[in-house]
Amino acid sequence: MKKVITVNRQFGSGGREFGKRLAEKLGIAYYDSEIISEIAARSGLAVEYVNNIVEHKPIIYYPITIGRTFVTHAPQPLDFNTRIYNEQHRLIRELAEKSDCVIIGRCADYILGDIRPLRIFIYADMPVRLERCRQKAPVDEKMTDKQLVRHIEEIDKGRSEYYKYFTGKKWDDMKHYDLCLNTSSTPIKTLAESLSYLIQNGCI
Amino acid sequence: MKKVITVNRQFGSGGREFGKRLAEKLGIAYYDSEIISEIAARSGLAVEYVNNIVEHKPIIYYPITIGRTFVTHAPQPLDFNTRIYNEQHRLIRELAEKSDCVIIGRCADYILGDIRPLRIFIYADMPVRLERCRQKAPVDEKMTDKQLVRHIEEIDKGRSEYYKYFTGKKWDDMKHYDLCLNTSSTPIKTLAESLSYLIQNGCI
Repeated sequence: MKKVITVNRQFGSGGREFGKRLAEKLGIAYYDSEIISEIAARSGLAVEYVNNIVEHKPIIYYPITIGRTFVTHAPQPLDFNTRIYNEQHRLIRELAEKSDCVIIGRCADYILGDIRPLRIFIYADMPVRLERCRQKAPVDEKMTDKQLVRHIEEIDKGRSEYYKYFTGKKWDDMKHYDLCLNTSSTPIKTLAESLSYLIQNGCI
Repeated sequence: MKKVITVNRQFGSGGREFGKRLAEKLGIAYYDSEIISEIAARSGLAVEYVNNIVEHKPIIYYPITIGRTFVTHAPQPLDFNTRIYNEQHRLIRELAEKSDCVIIGRCADYILGDIRPLRIFIYADMPVRLERCRQKAPVDEKMTDKQLVRHIEEIDKGRSEYYKYFTGKKWDDMKHYDLCLNTSSTPIKTLAESLSYLIQNGCI
């Protein structure tokens, strides 16, 4: 088995947990927020800034800090979004070349298209996503269900727009994936173990 | 295991073969074109007419034959489409109540929503669908690739419009399904066996 697996996921669907468990079961590397930290380190931009760009529709604006330095001079006419995307592109290719791995989000399915990764999309029904977000929310979280649904939809909208901007494709269109899994009715652990079994046995 | 499985499928994706193999592996009933024949028998409409309605966007028009009788009297202002859908609705519920089964298409996922079937959508990349159609085409098939792609897209459009008309939902939107499988890279046989294994072991 030689496998690079990309996992795109709706917010609150358990995609991250699924990816992590799958990587553990397969004994391969797992990359998620580490990608953001590394892009920040390479580009000299703040982690929060990079994260904000990667989770939203790219627009041309300027970071308050570059690395840890407060920007006091006038910003250069540079598209930081593209700079971040280019770093992301290079980094993801390096990771995939280094070893088998699971990569969460960040257009990795598109960036690695030529090496044919196993492209998975994880999603769930809204009530399940709502419940999952409630469980993971800080104890002082005061959002109503309606506000939380709007919050979930906004995060997905950001991911979708970022994906569309750099790949030209619709983020949640099944045709860009090999497998789309609804996590509403089956525990994430079971789904990850099942998929791991299929991958290890060359069934997918 | 108590399971009713619905399979919606893009034309040329191998969804029918997948469903048939899955039913065989699980040792449960399989319903496909039998549904059309039975609706025709119950409604007194010709098989070809019923099939034409079920594979297209419903419009109000009249069958040339009712059963085997040529219609010589003026047509009644009856919506044959709704009549067919109602028969289909009743029949699919009867089949699902009778025993575990795999049902291909015909809005079964929607009709059986309350009993929570395992809802699968089968799809594939266009070059793979084209090749599959070529293999299954009659030897005198003379369509160019371009014509065949248009033919495939038209059939899917018909299915999509029929689904939309009766369910109000987008046919190829992953959120209506539990599992969406791209058959482009893995043999149908392997996919069906894999899924059968997961179902039998309660993993999905």
